[in-house]
Amino acid sequence: MKTWVSGTAKVVEIGDGHPTRLIGERINPTGKPKLAEAIRSRDFDFIRAMAREQILAGADVLDVNVGKVGGDVALLSLVAKAIQEEFDIPLSLDSDNPAAVEEALKHIHGKPIVNSVTGQEASLEKILPLVKEYGAAVIALTIDDAGIPPDSERRLAIAQKIVDRAMKFGIYPQDIVIDCLALTVSTQNSGSTATLDAVRKVRTSLGLNQTLGASNISFGLPDRDVINNAFLAIAIEAGVTCPTVNVGKVRQTVLATDLLLGCDRYAQRYIKDYRRRLAAMKPLKQ
Amino acid sequence: MKTWVSGTAKVVEIGDGHPTRLIGERINPTGKPKLAEAIRSRDFDFIRAMAREQILAGADVLDVNVGKVGGDVALLSLVAKAIQEEFDIPLSLDSDNPAAVEEALKHIHGKPIVNSVTGQEASLEKILPLVKEYGAAVIALTIDDAGIPPDSERRLAIAQKIVDRAMKFGIYPQDIVIDCLALTVSTQNSGSTATLDAVRKVRTSLGLNQTLGASNISFGLPDRDVINNAFLAIAIEAGVTCPTVNVGKVRQTVLATDLLLGCDRYAQRYIKDYRRRLAAMKPLKQ
Repeated sequence: MKTWVSGTAKVVEIGDGHPTRLIGERINPTGKPKLAEAIRSRDFDFIRAMAREQILAGADVLDVNVGKVGGDVALLSLVAKAIQEEFDIPLSLDSDNPAAVEEALKHIHGKPIVNSVTGQEASLEKILPLVKEYGAAVIALTIDDAGIPPDSERRLAIAQKIVDRAMKFGIYPQDIVIDCLALTVSTQNSGSTATLDAVRKVRTSLGLNQTLGASNISFGLPDRDVINNAFLAIAIEAGVTCPTVNVGKVRQTVLATDLLLGCDRYAQRYIKDYRRRLAAMKPLKQ
Repeated sequence: MKTWVSGTAKVVEIGDGHPTRLIGERINPTGKPKLAEAIRSRDFDFIRAMAREQILAGADVLDVNVGKVGGDVALLSLVAKAIQEEFDIPLSLDSDNPAAVEEALKHIHGKPIVNSVTGQEASLEKILPLVKEYGAAVIALTIDDAGIPPDSERRLAIAQKIVDRAMKFGIYPQDIVIDCLALTVSTQNSGSTATLDAVRKVRTSLGLNQTLGASNISFGLPDRDVINNAFLAIAIEAGVTCPTVNVGKVRQTVLATDLLLGCDRYAQRYIKDYRRRLAAMKPLKQ
């Protein structure tokens, strides 16, 4: 199934034989005090530098999260607009405040992703009408009022429930991107396997595009990039089509995975990326 | 299913809930002129240094390949014995000369792997009796007189054929390790997918342990380790239990993959390996 999203100019198609698309996760102030300060002080240049870095690293979509907005429901919109002043790629509006999401939907260009709706009643009733009204795509988290189910069957059931409800609102299934939720593997032995099983079930049963916040998986462990990269390779094979990631840290593995899955004939994309990185290196002084 | 092999002292169990076992591929003179010279001149210290390096990096089994032996059928045996003088881990005797394999089987200790038998009649008739007589395990390549089948169904059929024939010789299926043969992904778009499909089919239909010479996959491409690591993560998830690899380059990803597949409770092995590597680093001068 093909989902498409857009920014001011750029259209990105997800799924349906396209290579894996990368949603850049970096514009999120959790654990980033400098970014938190830049958001507070509306230092948009700092935020745009972060956007640029991810785009240069190969991001196809940028997630925009401004943290808890409190009463300032315009903040997400302001940041998203500031990014759109310079960059044309699609945005993913990441907030648990529906009013902030609506404010951003009103003011930005193109067809963004709303991140996210859950299987919780309050979320379904508030977020889905916005997705329909503004013609957005939406990330659907497989969590409901009882929490994140430990087993893959129930995560699939929540995904199915969100799709059913979205269709009642007139939202097409192809505009729903499922997130089966990667847990932390250091504390929960099945944190990864239950998620991968759910990804396979969603692919088989619903055939929808899927994202995963792949970095959670390695929380609390050393050399996290090694774990995140191995997880992504397996998760993409299982059915994830647009992971939410630190692009610069995983892009090469994602390109290698597309190649290994037969989606990069003669390794053209892999080699092109290699040459691009080679060209970006500073030449040695003679 | 559980396969076990042994060296002079060490027993290694493969499969059946055990972590992924690594067969060290480095003792093979192809493309290594110094090693080729060391083998020619019987410089066993050089070869043992190469063995030591792989064992320290985490190899569970060492593949021993001395190249084309010509008339010198004792060479493989001599090198294998020289390794066993110092190291206790199981060996995999890698030669297409049955006389050289038999000479080594006669003289080394423990239960080695014979690498390899194929679906070709000449191979089946010469190798399987040796495997039975000396009580070895054997790697079975899914290739027959018609070559490597492009599709996974026929690779499975060859694996089945070798197992059937081996059983007629009195060899137990658990002593057969299947190799579905990784091809070069740069020249063949389905080089990886056909192999991974075959690995899944062998796991489902035969349930045997499986190896793969995982480095072939990236032949001719830049940054090969990125591709090899992504391939290994996917291949282990698919059913490979004892890949043949450059251990130092892939061990961390393999540990991460075991962790992600629920085979490393509380990440104990992953963290232990991290600490070991940290301890091996030279301290900065104060």
